[in-house]
Amino acid sequence: MQLQFWSIGKKNEAYVAEGIALFTKRISHYYKVEWKIIATTKNSAVLSAEDLKIEEGKIILNNLQKDDYLILLDERGKNLQSEELAKVLQKRNNDSTKQVIFLIGGAFGVSDEVIKRANFKWSLSNLVFPHQLVRLILAEQVYRACTINKNEKYHHV
Amino acid sequence: MQLQFWSIGKKNEAYVAEGIALFTKRISHYYKVEWKIIATTKNSAVLSAEDLKIEEGKIILNNLQKDDYLILLDERGKNLQSEELAKVLQKRNNDSTKQVIFLIGGAFGVSDEVIKRANFKWSLSNLVFPHQLVRLILAEQVYRACTINKNEKYHHV
Repeated sequence: MQLQFWSIGKKNEAYVAEGIALFTKRISHYYKVEWKIIATTKNSAVLSAEDLKIEEGKIILNNLQKDDYLILLDERGKNLQSEELAKVLQKRNNDSTKQVIFLIGGAFGVSDEVIKRANFKWSLSNLVFPHQLVRLILAEQVYRACTINKNEKYHHV
Repeated sequence: MQLQFWSIGKKNEAYVAEGIALFTKRISHYYKVEWKIIATTKNSAVLSAEDLKIEEGKIILNNLQKDDYLILLDERGKNLQSEELAKVLQKRNNDSTKQVIFLIGGAFGVSDEVIKRANFKWSLSNLVFPHQLVRLILAEQVYRACTINKNEKYHHV
């Protein structure tokens, strides 16, 4: 199984880059893993929030394979405990899913089409985080899930 | 009002240090703010988890002033939305609290005495995070709370 992290927006800011690199490297010991930072469309400044979401949604949907299991990070999604996230991954691994994609939407969220396409909607927390920090938290939690599923001691940094 | 962040354990790891410095500097535009990293006791390796918590608890309680408002980060605490954290801070500011202390406990949590002393117990998320990452999330959320209370646009990085 391969994991992909997709995030709409700018490249990683310095304050999260090292941590994201660290946890992504660790995840790579369990799964093939890749980040895709999707730049917002060039004319984003002149688009309404709704139109921007639709444009970004098209890019996302075009990049998805039919069998991809899409986990959308969404504040209206389900709150999970770390063990529950581990189970979500384990289940996908068991049913021979080829690719799991974690998607962090754009500044205004994602389009209805993307929400409909999502196989699972996950809310990290009741707190609102900047998307840059969401990337770091996501990488750390997926690494944690990998260690939980292998019954390994979590390696603190 | 002054804010203090207390955390038991090691100094900030590289992967969180820059972000913590960034958000702490921003908080300093609203409140006097200070971090106190409390090293675990020297004989921690030979102590049981329970005895370690008691030893650490003594250090914490010795450092507290009677009027300090102690917010303990505790997974059994209350989940807050970012706006609710802002209200907690605003309320303390309004009632002339001199010092609010956010406490991140040690590897095994904190002693019963510290739990009893806490004025508020706050659970960041249903997810388990490494304490280093908790420091960064805490700094970001307190900065966010400051901007909410001043009706300011959150400055993304």
